[in-house]
Amino acid sequence: MTVIAATARERMLLAKDASRSVGLLTDAQKADLLRAIADGIDAAAAEIVAANAEDLERGRANGLSAGLQDRLRLDEARVHALASAVRDVADLPDPVGRVLEERTIAGGVRLQKVSVPFGVIGSIYEARPNVTVDIASLALRAGNAVVLRGGSAAQSSNAALIAVMRGVLAAQGVDPEAIQTVDDFGRDGARELMRARGLVDVLVPRGSAELIRTVVAESSVPVIETGAGVVHIVLDSSAPLDWARDIVVNAKVQRPSVCNAVETVLVLRDAAERLVPPVVAALQSAGVTVHGDADARRLAPGIVPATEEDWATEHMSLDLSLRIVDDLDEALTHIRTYSTQHTESIITTDDAHAERFLAEVDAAVVMANASTRFTDGGEFGFGAEVGISTQKLHARGPMGLPELTSVKWLARGSGQIRS
Amino acid sequence: MTVIAATARERMLLAKDASRSVGLLTDAQKADLLRAIADGIDAAAAEIVAANAEDLERGRANGLSAGLQDRLRLDEARVHALASAVRDVADLPDPVGRVLEERTIAGGVRLQKVSVPFGVIGSIYEARPNVTVDIASLALRAGNAVVLRGGSAAQSSNAALIAVMRGVLAAQGVDPEAIQTVDDFGRDGARELMRARGLVDVLVPRGSAELIRTVVAESSVPVIETGAGVVHIVLDSSAPLDWARDIVVNAKVQRPSVCNAVETVLVLRDAAERLVPPVVAALQSAGVTVHGDADARRLAPGIVPATEEDWATEHMSLDLSLRIVDDLDEALTHIRTYSTQHTESIITTDDAHAERFLAEVDAAVVMANASTRFTDGGEFGFGAEVGISTQKLHARGPMGLPELTSVKWLARGSGQIRS
Repeated sequence: MTVIAATARERMLLAKDASRSVGLLTDAQKADLLRAIADGIDAAAAEIVAANAEDLERGRANGLSAGLQDRLRLDEARVHALASAVRDVADLPDPVGRVLEERTIAGGVRLQKVSVPFGVIGSIYEARPNVTVDIASLALRAGNAVVLRGGSAAQSSNAALIAVMRGVLAAQGVDPEAIQTVDDFGRDGARELMRARGLVDVLVPRGSAELIRTVVAESSVPVIETGAGVVHIVLDSSAPLDWARDIVVNAKVQRPSVCNAVETVLVLRDAAERLVPPVVAALQSAGVTVHGDADARRLAPGIVPATEEDWATEHMSLDLSLRIVDDLDEALTHIRTYSTQHTESIITTDDAHAERFLAEVDAAVVMANASTRFTDGGEFGFGAEVGISTQKLHARGPMGLPELTSVKWLARGSGQIRS
Repeated sequence: MTVIAATARERMLLAKDASRSVGLLTDAQKADLLRAIADGIDAAAAEIVAANAEDLERGRANGLSAGLQDRLRLDEARVHALASAVRDVADLPDPVGRVLEERTIAGGVRLQKVSVPFGVIGSIYEARPNVTVDIASLALRAGNAVVLRGGSAAQSSNAALIAVMRGVLAAQGVDPEAIQTVDDFGRDGARELMRARGLVDVLVPRGSAELIRTVVAESSVPVIETGAGVVHIVLDSSAPLDWARDIVVNAKVQRPSVCNAVETVLVLRDAAERLVPPVVAALQSAGVTVHGDADARRLAPGIVPATEEDWATEHMSLDLSLRIVDDLDEALTHIRTYSTQHTESIITTDDAHAERFLAEVDAAVVMANASTRFTDGGEFGFGAEVGISTQKLHARGPMGLPELTSVKWLARGSGQIRS
C-alpha cells in the first residue's frame, strides 16, 4: 500500500502531476494496467469484503435502509464481478489519439485536431463502492488521473479498493498518485474538490437529484450534469395498442429505480378510450400504481388521483402518472414544462407526428416507437457508461469513453509566419 | 422597433421561448434572415453612428482612454464592415442537422446523433459594439436565441444595433424576442444572466482576463472560457536562425494586443549564444522591449531585467519576456508553470523534440515551427470565430459555428422493448 498525502489540496496536486505520465501511456499499457487492477481486485477479494463488512456494520448501527445496505454490500461474487467489469473496460478501444480533423493551412502548416485525456477527472457519488472502481477504470482507460469522493457510508470499502488499485499502479511502474480519494475529509473533501478549478479538469457527480443540484450550484470546476429523468411517453392517436402497452410496461416495470424509466404517460384524447383501459390494466397487473387526471380516472378503475407534484416527480418506484391531453401541441407543452430533458418517446404510426416530435422535443434522447429503457451506454453500443448527461455542453445522453477526453490542435509547420 | 420586456428574467424567458421557433428555421431561412439583418444595418447606418456618438461623448466626458474610444467608435465605414461580416456568416454552412453518428441497435431501432442548436446563448463582453452584431449573427446562424450584455460604455450603440436587428426579425416573420439585451440593468443584468441556469444554455464571456475570471467564478450557467494567452515559443538547440527570428518577430509584432501574440521566448542554453543576439536585435528594431533573465542580458545589449511577474504576464504590448533554459525539460516545466494553455510553439529541426513537445504540452494549440498568430478561427478555415476556448470541456481552441451547437440522439423504432 502506498502512502497517502496529508491534505485534499496536496492530493489533487499529486493527481495533476500524475496525470501527465498517465496521459502518455500507450493503448496497450493502459489495457494491461486495467487487467492488472482486475487481477489485484480478485486477489484482494477477502480484504475488500472484510472492509465492506465494517461499512455494513456501521450502516446497520446508523439505521441505513435495506435498499441502501444492498447497494453498499460487496460479497466475493460482487467483487469478482467488479474485476470483470474492469476487464471489459480494458477491452474497449483507446479513446485517446483519434484524429478528429485534419487540414493544411497557411501554405503548408499541417493542422490536426486530436483527442487527448482531460487530465484529472473528479467524481462525487453516493455509497456504492462499485462506482469507485467503475470511474477509476474508465478515467484511467482514457489516460486520466482521478480524484474520488464517495459516500461516507462506503468509506472503508472505498479505502480498501483504492489501496488495491494504487498498489497495482505502483507495482506496474505507474504513478499511484493518479488515483486519489478525499473521502476521509468528509464534507470538506467534497467542497475542496468542487473548488479545485485548475487542478481538476471536469467533475462528474453521480447519484441523487439533490447531490447533482448541489454540485452544479457549488462547483467552480466544470461539471457534467448527469441523471435525473422525468421521462415521458406520448400515446398518439395512431398508436397501435400492442406497441403502446408493451413499451409503457417495459419502460416502467423492467427497472423502475433507474433514470430512463418512464414517469408520465400522455395520451391523446381521441385515442384515450381505446388505449387507457388496456394499458392501465397491463400496468396494474404488473404491480404499478397509476396516478391519473380526472379524465383518465373515468376510463379505467383503480387509478389514484394525480397531483400537480406528480407531473414533476421522478418516482423511482412502481408509480406512473397518466394524463389525457387534447392534442400533440398540448403533449409538447406538458413535456416542455416538466421534462428534465433526459429521454422522451412517442408511440405513433403517423410519420408526420413522429418527425415533429423528434424535431421539437428538446431532450438528450428523443424516440419514436421504442422503449425509453434503451437510453443506456451499453444499449447504445458504447461498451461502458460513464453516466447519462442531461446538459448540452460537451456531452449529451449516454457518455462513453470518448466523452472522457478533450481535444488538442497540433500544428506542424516549416517556418510559416502569418501575413 | 419592437417593445422590450420589463425585467431581465422576463427577457430571458422570451428568449427561451423564441429559441424554439428559431431552432426550427431551415438553412435558407437563417441565411436570408442574416442577409436581411445586414441590409437593415446598412440602411440604419446614420442612426447607428448617431447613437455611437452619444457613447463617445459620454466616454470622453468620463475620461475613456484613446484606445478604448477607438474600439468603441463606429463610423459609416465601420457600420458597413459590420454588415458585411454578417453576410459572411450568412454564407457559412449550417452547423445544425449534421448526422454525427448513426447505428442500428436493439434489433431495428435506428439511432442517429445529430447536431442541434443550444437554445439560448448568453454573452458578456466589453464596450465593443461590433461584438453585439458578431455574437447575435453567429448565434442565429446556428439556430440559437441570444441574450447580450455589453459594456455600459457602448450602451447607446448596442441599443441601436439591437433595435435594428429585432426590427428585421419582426419584419421577416421571426420572433424578435430571439435577440435580447440586459445592458440597461447594469451589473444586475450581468448577475441575472450568470444565474439563469435553465433559461440560458451556455454563456460565452469575451474580454479581459478579469471579466472572464468573474464570469467563471459567479456563473451557474455553463461557461465557455475564452481568451487569456500567456503564449510561449521555445527555441530548441536545433532551431534555424531564420525560422526563430521570423516567427518570434511575427508572433510578437504583427498584432501585440491579441491573445495569440507571444509573451515569452525560452531559449535552450546551447543555442543561446547563436540565437539570442540576432533575435533580440530583430525584436528591438521592430520596437519591442525585451525583458530578460541575467543569462540573456549577458548575450545582448538593451535587455531590461525580467521580474518573476513578467513570466506570468500577458503583456498585450510590444514587450516580450526572454529566458535561457538548460534543456527541453526545463522549458516544459516553465510552460507548465506559467502557460494559460492557449498556444505554445517550438522551433526545431529535431523531430524527436518536436513530437515530444506536441505530445507533452497541455494547451489548446501546440505547434512546431509555426507562428502562434495562426491560432485563429479565420486562419483555421472556420470562416468566423466565436472566440478561442482555453477550457477543455465542449470546445478547445478557436471556436467556429459548430461549437455553437449541441447534440441530440434520435431513435426511430417499431415497437422495440428492452429485454
